[in-house]
Amino acid sequence: MSEQSIDTRLWSAKACNLSPYVPGEQPQHDNLCKLNTNENPFPPSPKVSEAIHAALAHQADELRLYPAPESDDLRQALADLHQLECNQVFVGNGSDEVLALVFASFFMKPLPLLAPDISYSFYPVYAQTFGVNLLPVALKEDFSIDPADYQQQCGGIIIANPNAPTGLLLSLTDIRQLAQAHPDAVVVIDEAYIDFARADEASIDKEVSAVSLINEFDNILVTQTFSKSRSLAGLRVGMAFANASLIEALTRMKNSFNSYPLDKLAQVGATASVLDRPYFEHICQQVIDLRQVLTSELTALGYQVLPSHTNFIFARPKDGNASTVASTLREQGIIVRHFKQPRIQEYLRITVGTSDQNKRLTDALKAL
Amino acid sequence: MSEQSIDTRLWSAKACNLSPYVPGEQPQHDNLCKLNTNENPFPPSPKVSEAIHAALAHQADELRLYPAPESDDLRQALADLHQLECNQVFVGNGSDEVLALVFASFFMKPLPLLAPDISYSFYPVYAQTFGVNLLPVALKEDFSIDPADYQQQCGGIIIANPNAPTGLLLSLTDIRQLAQAHPDAVVVIDEAYIDFARADEASIDKEVSAVSLINEFDNILVTQTFSKSRSLAGLRVGMAFANASLIEALTRMKNSFNSYPLDKLAQVGATASVLDRPYFEHICQQVIDLRQVLTSELTALGYQVLPSHTNFIFARPKDGNASTVASTLREQGIIVRHFKQPRIQEYLRITVGTSDQNKRLTDALKAL
Repeated sequence: MSEQSIDTRLWSAKACNLSPYVPGEQPQHDNLCKLNTNENPFPPSPKVSEAIHAALAHQADELRLYPAPESDDLRQALADLHQLECNQVFVGNGSDEVLALVFASFFMKPLPLLAPDISYSFYPVYAQTFGVNLLPVALKEDFSIDPADYQQQCGGIIIANPNAPTGLLLSLTDIRQLAQAHPDAVVVIDEAYIDFARADEASIDKEVSAVSLINEFDNILVTQTFSKSRSLAGLRVGMAFANASLIEALTRMKNSFNSYPLDKLAQVGATASVLDRPYFEHICQQVIDLRQVLTSELTALGYQVLPSHTNFIFARPKDGNASTVASTLREQGIIVRHFKQPRIQEYLRITVGTSDQNKRLTDALKAL
Repeated sequence: MSEQSIDTRLWSAKACNLSPYVPGEQPQHDNLCKLNTNENPFPPSPKVSEAIHAALAHQADELRLYPAPESDDLRQALADLHQLECNQVFVGNGSDEVLALVFASFFMKPLPLLAPDISYSFYPVYAQTFGVNLLPVALKEDFSIDPADYQQQCGGIIIANPNAPTGLLLSLTDIRQLAQAHPDAVVVIDEAYIDFARADEASIDKEVSAVSLINEFDNILVTQTFSKSRSLAGLRVGMAFANASLIEALTRMKNSFNSYPLDKLAQVGATASVLDRPYFEHICQQVIDLRQVLTSELTALGYQVLPSHTNFIFARPKDGNASTVASTLREQGIIVRHFKQPRIQEYLRITVGTSDQNKRLTDALKAL
């Protein structure tokens, strides 16, 4: 709807003042090489569709009934996976919904929320939606996060780790330091891409996920998603891990918005995905391997590639003409993401695809 | 989690002050006669599971991709059904999510929101969630709604029609009058149960749904759900119909919370349901027929039964001992809903079940 024709007379001030999130486009053409929204190039575990087929075959009639409001089976599977109690696990309709509830539950406070200035672009949108004062903290020159920059009074902290769109990883040592420095604020670690991260050999941390810290820190909350490493963006499932008191707040907030955010089939499918651990490990490793190859090839083409811990790479063409490169690729049906934003406008965010997709991309770049 | 053990130290004031909605319980025992959450006693259209099976069989791999964020095919099917434009249709994760977005988009205003004092118990929860001042307007002695009682300045009006838990229907003449009297407020008609309503012979309105008014009134917004008449509570799909400017506000609000609330399978299944009109008409009529029989039988047992336009009946036992009746039925595995609330505590809300379920209920009541 064009801005001119919108009649906002009946809208709330809240609605009038929104600047909604703009997701990466989902074009539907054939033969598109879609490397713009960080979807997994591999299909989900075959157990997912098997489980949904079976549920439909045996219990299609039960779609008439409401689903389990707290998705108990799925939460139990996730708790078992991480050796947690069920009351330390929350699930929602994608990690975006989980993050919305997190903002309402923990960040609507008088003190500002701290977040990196370059990060997931939905954070400032949530801040506006919930009237949260978000204070951006500048990344270092090399795009890394320095915990020392967060040594200020705040009502909360949110950090994507690995960060997007940079792909860089913050160590658990740094996350501990943040949690210790802010005992009265919730430190949210958004681990949408964590399953593609591996500890550096030089790191003293063997573990990379902050889920390993939640029994130690009552103020760390970790969000994750089924949309990336589990190839289930189409099923809309996300989750949070934290101590039971934080999970209780999220549950109450959910039940004040929408009691049943996960349908029966999504619950069944997501549970089957969690239970198929070998498949999960296998495709994560495949994506990591493809990432290494793509990184080498782009480096050979003169691209400056940040060390990625995700299923995308963040890379700067030799001349910094990222916008032109993106447009030229698009003409050939290859879609990558470019952010018209200070500091990163010379970079492209490119999803790691299949070997064929990556070859199509690098062939096109060579021809440029 | 027991109230004593909850540590709310890190919660926002918003989270601390919530009184979340409590959905009707979903017990999982066998041989239960579940007449407490107004689910449809009949299964969804067989086309729903056929369509989902087919989508999984041919495109299971595509679950790795995000769904269409605005559910275009489903919205088009709903637009065609009601002879509307696609931009007059909004869909969300159940009508509960749609209602949450409605509260944020249209009711967060300085003037109070008017709603019947006895109605869907989620409304006061949303009001609290979004800081909306809800001013309850008392139903008449006979539980009917009188538009004259809404002749006061307000920021919005929300009315469930048919109302829950009373089951009574407000005429379109009355709804027109409300919309005309409040040109600067959005009048929301929550039609969760409208497909079970039929115009009274005495009524001058042939139509019962306010969807027929939205081209005439720019301030009427109608919500509906797939959970009742379409037997798809397990799939989580709800919708709103209104002029394009109101739909645009909802869309922006959605994209400031969660961009993709409907997963791919829910979109496919719901679309198949809309396209199977004969099945839909058939089961709605079956429920209406069963409702008539159940009403007669309860009346014969001395119950005072309100004239229901829904898939439940609201009935008062001869002695007004509704709470005792509910407990006794529960001991026999028959679950009905009782509200411990002034004015209606002597009533039971009983979902219309299958003939077998209704017989089990009436047999049990006879034995009391």
